[in-house]
Amino acid sequence: MRIPILKLQNYLLISIQVDLDDQTAIEFQEDLLSQIYKSGAKGVVIDLTSVDIIDSFIAKVLGDVVTMSDLMGAKVVLTGIQPAVAMTLLELGIHMQEVQTALNLEQGLIKLRQELEG
Amino acid sequence: MRIPILKLQNYLLISIQVDLDDQTAIEFQEDLLSQIYKSGAKGVVIDLTSVDIIDSFIAKVLGDVVTMSDLMGAKVVLTGIQPAVAMTLLELGIHMQEVQTALNLEQGLIKLRQELEG
Repeated sequence: MRIPILKLQNYLLISIQVDLDDQTAIEFQEDLLSQIYKSGAKGVVIDLTSVDIIDSFIAKVLGDVVTMSDLMGAKVVLTGIQPAVAMTLLELGIHMQEVQTALNLEQGLIKLRQELEG
Repeated sequence: MRIPILKLQNYLLISIQVDLDDQTAIEFQEDLLSQIYKSGAKGVVIDLTSVDIIDSFIAKVLGDVVTMSDLMGAKVVLTGIQPAVAMTLLELGIHMQEVQTALNLEQGLIKLRQELEG
């Protein structure tokens, strides 16, 4: 089963509520980039509230998703990052310096709106 | 994999992007009712854009979800109903007379807001 991507106005919303295995993560990456292209979305909120832990491969995929979305013109906000997930991202030196984060989906959407709509 | 339920303000958003088998449909019903209870959501948008066809069991479950959510105080809007899905719902006599519908997720959310916020 693929991770659903919801389109709301100019934004794409994703809530990851499964354990991300390698295959699912790669499919998600493909689906998201293709949706950004098709929808012309300007912003993406990826909610990780239900993700307890990630391994190095998933962390890398997530980092790549953010960078690639950015290249395609869509700003990504990650929300609901749990402590263990934050630690993995940091330990692996994933380049998340420029990644916007927020507490939850709502806050992420507000942040994107502020940033993109002035 | 369970169908993710996204919380946005007072609303729950669901986009069904898989073929609904019986087990998934039942789990979705349980998850949604439990989320309505936990979150105190006042409205629910269920987007069926990616659902091409449904059988009688799924149609019944969907009808029940709408009725039960209503009993729990959350108004449901179904969006993106395709012709074949509409026909199944009608043929089975599912009581959808009072179900709000809309074209897509955005329109569904607008409809809920108008109805619930005046």
